[in-house]
Amino acid sequence: MADVTFIGGGSFGTALSVMLAKKGYDVSIWDRNPLVIKDINEKRENIKYMHNVVIPSNVTAFTNLDDALEDSRAVVLAVPSHAIREVSSQIKNKIDKNAIIINISKGIEESTSKRLSVVIEEEIKNNPIVVLTGPSHAEEVAVDIPTTVVVSSKNMEAARKVQDIFMTSKFRVYTNDDLIGVEIGGAVKNIIALAAGISDGAGYGDNTKAALMTRGMSEITRIGVKLGAKQDTFFGLTGMGDLIVTCTSMHSRNRRAGILIGKGYSLEESCKEVGMVVEGVKACRAFYKLKEELNIAMPITDILYKVLFEGMDPKYGVYELMSRDKKHEIY
Amino acid sequence: MADVTFIGGGSFGTALSVMLAKKGYDVSIWDRNPLVIKDINEKRENIKYMHNVVIPSNVTAFTNLDDALEDSRAVVLAVPSHAIREVSSQIKNKIDKNAIIINISKGIEESTSKRLSVVIEEEIKNNPIVVLTGPSHAEEVAVDIPTTVVVSSKNMEAARKVQDIFMTSKFRVYTNDDLIGVEIGGAVKNIIALAAGISDGAGYGDNTKAALMTRGMSEITRIGVKLGAKQDTFFGLTGMGDLIVTCTSMHSRNRRAGILIGKGYSLEESCKEVGMVVEGVKACRAFYKLKEELNIAMPITDILYKVLFEGMDPKYGVYELMSRDKKHEIY
Repeated sequence: MADVTFIGGGSFGTALSVMLAKKGYDVSIWDRNPLVIKDINEKRENIKYMHNVVIPSNVTAFTNLDDALEDSRAVVLAVPSHAIREVSSQIKNKIDKNAIIINISKGIEESTSKRLSVVIEEEIKNNPIVVLTGPSHAEEVAVDIPTTVVVSSKNMEAARKVQDIFMTSKFRVYTNDDLIGVEIGGAVKNIIALAAGISDGAGYGDNTKAALMTRGMSEITRIGVKLGAKQDTFFGLTGMGDLIVTCTSMHSRNRRAGILIGKGYSLEESCKEVGMVVEGVKACRAFYKLKEELNIAMPITDILYKVLFEGMDPKYGVYELMSRDKKHEIY
Repeated sequence: MADVTFIGGGSFGTALSVMLAKKGYDVSIWDRNPLVIKDINEKRENIKYMHNVVIPSNVTAFTNLDDALEDSRAVVLAVPSHAIREVSSQIKNKIDKNAIIINISKGIEESTSKRLSVVIEEEIKNNPIVVLTGPSHAEEVAVDIPTTVVVSSKNMEAARKVQDIFMTSKFRVYTNDDLIGVEIGGAVKNIIALAAGISDGAGYGDNTKAALMTRGMSEITRIGVKLGAKQDTFFGLTGMGDLIVTCTSMHSRNRRAGILIGKGYSLEESCKEVGMVVEGVKACRAFYKLKEELNIAMPITDILYKVLFEGMDPKYGVYELMSRDKKHEIY
């Protein structure tokens, strides 16, 4: 019996579990990896994904989904974006009819270009679905470093409940009713972070990266507004805030993968070295397709696609981006 | 006889001198420090401000202003913001009547809260005045790292001339006719960079700094729009771009000073350690006054003012900023 159940015992799920447990909630974690379950329950540490953080005794991990979900009033989906549909389908007949579904994964579904809340809603018809996102590296949340995030939903009453569940003095939760903007910002920023990492890895500088990120913001905003988002959302925590942290922090696995690619490693080698799912790779494929369909200019996504999947030299890619013939600054 | 004269042999002035000299221009540098002059002319290196960069032979340094300005068709003001009025007054009767004045200093005049182009115009009545600004750390410009900047002016024909003078394949110059926005972005970002440095120095994380920078952007935009700038300018290179590079790069002296203050050093010790003018300190005083007069909410500037000048504990200051009671995300 749990207050909150996490589907997925990765780094962000574990960090939030620890935070909620400290706040007094009984927390369950489901993961398909029995070693992770064993380490959490017996060693009180998620050695694979969140080293050196003590997991309180009111967190219990399960390999059995029914046990993990029993009586839970909030279910957090903490799996990579490509697994969202599958886990939504798996849990739909096991959850309480009033349970709030909270998605903390960032991305879009590659095969359909759908936002993740839409994917979840297609599988779980009647439960409220809330998205929690923003500049929040798990490694910092786990050690109580001040962090701000945003919750959004079609059902803002549910979003406010999630705000109450997660809010602490070190983890500030804001509401924003622009669900489309909040989700698109979180998905596209990983593309820009990969490109920023490539720029760093190829030996370019802070001046170069700042220019890339500035243009990246206009790229995120352009596709987001076309998809129905409000422009202002992109200048908030889930747009600019998340872009900054993802492009500049060494905690960012997208940036780290980019750095390796910029140094000349292959995409496969780079992703393997980072050891966790690199969401920007999937996002690049998905948004490349989407921008072609919608006829939107996304020059960074274009170049990244060529670097990742068509063998373009990363150094040349950054150079191409920097030397486009644009004389007047228009965003 | 020079094509371009730099008033001030600091790091950015020296970096741009080297760049223009490589492009084939004859460049003069005036500086009041005879050691800098001697090092440039005899050692072909500005040891004090730009170590390890070879200065080409078509750069000549002068202690005499008349000699430095002789026949110059473009005069670059490369001094700290507090010296802009004085040097403008000193050169006004020595410059060619058609010479373009180019300001690369960022800040506002503390005693009057005037933008620097206004200060220059008050002293030099009839010459065209162009501002060159953006995310451009001198240390990177000097070694040909790809960099983008913006030129702006009341006289956009002059701005386009400056664009032609400075443009190279590694140094991209864009035009933007929102002079107010371009100047305000460059001045206020140093306040946010000091605050971001303090957050780093006090041991807060990347999540914290991303939140600070996001709120900083809304603070810059708010005061800028009130002063007559266009909102869009702040999402470009001279707003967001320059903010990012100043808050995240170790080349930023504002950030470096902030880190020391966050670690517990006094303002005086921190500025002395950084060794160059910390523009954010002056900008904080000037914009604190201005926001009071104009009744604009600038919470980061408020808190920074208390930390710098009223003895507030920096750690407490960051905490205050992070825990303001704001529940819905509005920018």
